[in-house]
Amino acid sequence: MSAETAWKHKDLVGIQPLTRAEIELIHDTARAFKEVLARPIKKTPSLRGKTVANLFVEPSTRTRLSFELAAQRLSADVVSMVGTDSSSFKKGETLKDTALNLQALNIDFIVLRHSAAGAAQFLAERLHAHVVNAGDGSHEHPTQALLDTYTMREKLGGGGLAKLDGLRVVICGDILYSRVARSNIWALTKLGARVTLVGPATLVPETFRELGAEISHDFDSVLPDAQVLMLQRPQLERQGKTLFPSLGEYTSLFGLTKERFKRCRPDVILMNPGPITRGVEMDSELADGPNSVILAQVTNGLAVRMAVLYLLNGGRGPEGIQP
Amino acid sequence: MSAETAWKHKDLVGIQPLTRAEIELIHDTARAFKEVLARPIKKTPSLRGKTVANLFVEPSTRTRLSFELAAQRLSADVVSMVGTDSSSFKKGETLKDTALNLQALNIDFIVLRHSAAGAAQFLAERLHAHVVNAGDGSHEHPTQALLDTYTMREKLGGGGLAKLDGLRVVICGDILYSRVARSNIWALTKLGARVTLVGPATLVPETFRELGAEISHDFDSVLPDAQVLMLQRPQLERQGKTLFPSLGEYTSLFGLTKERFKRCRPDVILMNPGPITRGVEMDSELADGPNSVILAQVTNGLAVRMAVLYLLNGGRGPEGIQP
Amino acid sequence: MSAETAWKHKDLVGIQPLTRAEIELIHDTARAFKEVLARPIKKTPSLRGKTVANLFVEPSTRTRLSFELAAQRLSADVVSMVGTDSSSFKKGETLKDTALNLQALNIDFIVLRHSAAGAAQFLAERLHAHVVNAGDGSHEHPTQALLDTYTMREKLGGGGLAKLDGLRVVICGDILYSRVARSNIWALTKLGARVTLVGPATLVPETFRELGAEISHDFDSVLPDAQVLMLQRPQLERQGKTLFPSLGEYTSLFGLTKERFKRCRPDVILMNPGPITRGVEMDSELADGPNSVILAQVTNGLAVRMAVLYLLNGGRGPEGIQP
Repeated sequence: MSAETAWKHKDLVGIQPLTRAEIELIHDTARAFKEVLARPIKKTPSLRGKTVANLFVEPSTRTRLSFELAAQRLSADVVSMVGTDSSSFKKGETLKDTALNLQALNIDFIVLRHSAAGAAQFLAERLHAHVVNAGDGSHEHPTQALLDTYTMREKLGGGGLAKLDGLRVVICGDILYSRVARSNIWALTKLGARVTLVGPATLVPETFRELGAEISHDFDSVLPDAQVLMLQRPQLERQGKTLFPSLGEYTSLFGLTKERFKRCRPDVILMNPGPITRGVEMDSELADGPNSVILAQVTNGLAVRMAVLYLLNGGRGPEGIQP
Repeated sequence: MSAETAWKHKDLVGIQPLTRAEIELIHDTARAFKEVLARPIKKTPSLRGKTVANLFVEPSTRTRLSFELAAQRLSADVVSMVGTDSSSFKKGETLKDTALNLQALNIDFIVLRHSAAGAAQFLAERLHAHVVNAGDGSHEHPTQALLDTYTMREKLGGGGLAKLDGLRVVICGDILYSRVARSNIWALTKLGARVTLVGPATLVPETFRELGAEISHDFDSVLPDAQVLMLQRPQLERQGKTLFPSLGEYTSLFGLTKERFKRCRPDVILMNPGPITRGVEMDSELADGPNSVILAQVTNGLAVRMAVLYLLNGGRGPEGIQP
Repeated sequence: MSAETAWKHKDLVGIQPLTRAEIELIHDTARAFKEVLARPIKKTPSLRGKTVANLFVEPSTRTRLSFELAAQRLSADVVSMVGTDSSSFKKGETLKDTALNLQALNIDFIVLRHSAAGAAQFLAERLHAHVVNAGDGSHEHPTQALLDTYTMREKLGGGGLAKLDGLRVVICGDILYSRVARSNIWALTKLGARVTLVGPATLVPETFRELGAEISHDFDSVLPDAQVLMLQRPQLERQGKTLFPSLGEYTSLFGLTKERFKRCRPDVILMNPGPITRGVEMDSELADGPNSVILAQVTNGLAVRMAVLYLLNGGRGPEGIQP
């Protein structure tokens, strides 16, 4: 690795501010951590004596668990504050005051899941602590996009990590309110892939073309070309609005049924950030079948989050990892 | 210990699949861990670098705490997911998908408390991880039976662990819905004890004779012979049904009052898996009196759970424990 | 430090039982721990192999977090049971039985937050474990008073810890139901400070004179003399009663507005135990201004709690801290 690709950011607030080289540095580091995770004793001392606080104002067991494990395997101490178990929030304390308190406690890393877009940026600007955005409203979920692109590179890499230039990726679902889609559009376009967004017109507005993506409302027509198909649970409940009539109607138009799967390339890669709603956005057997890399996404998420914490802590890329 | 008694199971799903020698191996190992727990620094490095996930879909602070402590004292990392704090469950993910996710995160041990009988077996068959059943519906709660029988063996052992052959044990309460009773019937009969079940006919059906137990609905008549008396909180609320009229009526027929205690042997051993409802299934003074081993059950539970995790991890019985 | 000031208590239940020398011993020890907290690896091995159980029957994220971090940085293992996540409580177990269970699990430290005055004392008398009162009803919150007085001593100490003899401290707010105020009255008077309590007559009854404090219901008149001003969020909701008409009225009479601040000494020290309700008990800019030590209180709270756990564990004052 050259000196230019050394990590320079205090925080990971989104994919948008990252360069391609920085994304690749995270991926290279994550790949080294996957080797650590394959050992009988899956720990490194990189973050010993550091404290990671998981602040999940919007609860998410899966993402919190992945970050907790990542921190533990780096030998950090972990504290977690989840949703309404926080009396501070109930007593009306602002996010800023919560942040200042965490700062005063000399916490080294804050992993924030919050319902408001911009919440992670807000903390990052005010704290010495490293802030990792674990999802802010409909804005970004950068570690999800990092693990998704890592998984594509690994799957296509034949033992290494492939370049994604020219790769045709289709993201299908509720794009409008999806931080996962937003972060993936940034990551994929930076890595040279071609992104097509598919879904009902209410959920995939034309404005997304400005991010460099193509748009379609006809799932069947984009299937034959797709090399990667990212499917997402439709979030019927978002924002108190119903944006299409029913799950059944969603599935008939945008669900990856077995019938529809026949239109795909035989080597198409099927992804889903989870949790899967089997039979809605994708057929249950396809989720478990040979084209699916859904569980690889979960495994890689842990390695990517270790890499992010390690680099934010001043780690110098894969060759700096302590045994 | 002979080679035949080496531990061979990936999981601890129930007592039913265990041999007497395997139960005794767990007990011998637990006894060695009790010595560890008496040290100023109550830890061994046996599970260093391993992760134990407590998945308590049905919440239970006491059992979760005991498993958390057992894992910590073996130097494992611990993550806990409790009841409704799990957004995955709320979003409708199946137990299978939760399990696959935990597998993908390379978690070494899953301790599962679940309201459905068979849930632990379901996970055990699908995961590489070691699964420990911490209670599945009305089916089994194996570590409870292991700690209960350990406590009897210790109490009767005069410094060692006694054999239970021929011991007369009475289990009184809501047997029908009790996983504790079911696991204890298996454990006690395998260890040679004679088990009598007592309770209202609605809660102690005749079919339990098939498990090798005797049945009575007259508490007073079985008391003079009992060497061990296991009392259980009646679970009025189970399954949305009321199976006897009131707590007062329960106590008058099946509560161990001071008056009724006079019928017992002076050396009768009183047990209760907790939480005690003082004045209902047993008199409060008796719970705290010299015949009670209720707190020894709690202490032994920790040692038994350490032994289970240690053996599942490939530990070779008591002489293999690292200092 | 002389032999007389060695720590002799099994528990920290309140400030009332402490001598001035004991309070100063805690402060001296906390000061040494602040140096530990400034290191890159913020840990000492003092409590390795010990277990700290946080039993927060009344939830409090902030205080629990501070104790969790204190325990982790002393290398203890930590388990937490918070509010209604505890099925034991739901099943009607008494505090005594919960305590006996924790004893049976051989837990070394119990940090208790409870809505009932006397709950910590109740546990302390029954358990071998060290009990730390993290707030019991309206009675005491000793670590809060220890960190508050530490913060005053540090702020006035010019690099060391000042004596507080003769210091004029005003505590304004809901004194009647405030364990923070009660513990601070004890601590401040023991350290030689002069305490004036201010608030509505319904919340600052005359009986508090017996504790050695002066009483006023006219905030404006006490401001010019105050060297330290402790402001507390009015707890409108306490005890199901409303003790003054509205927050607006509270602020107009007892809130530290910018206008009112003009009456203060320029070097007045502003304190608030948090969470702050900005614009109610104090102006938001004043909370963030140069007179405020609110965040220093949070930082010092961690060091004070480390000192308390360390001394209860047999630590011999600041010079005994392991590197």
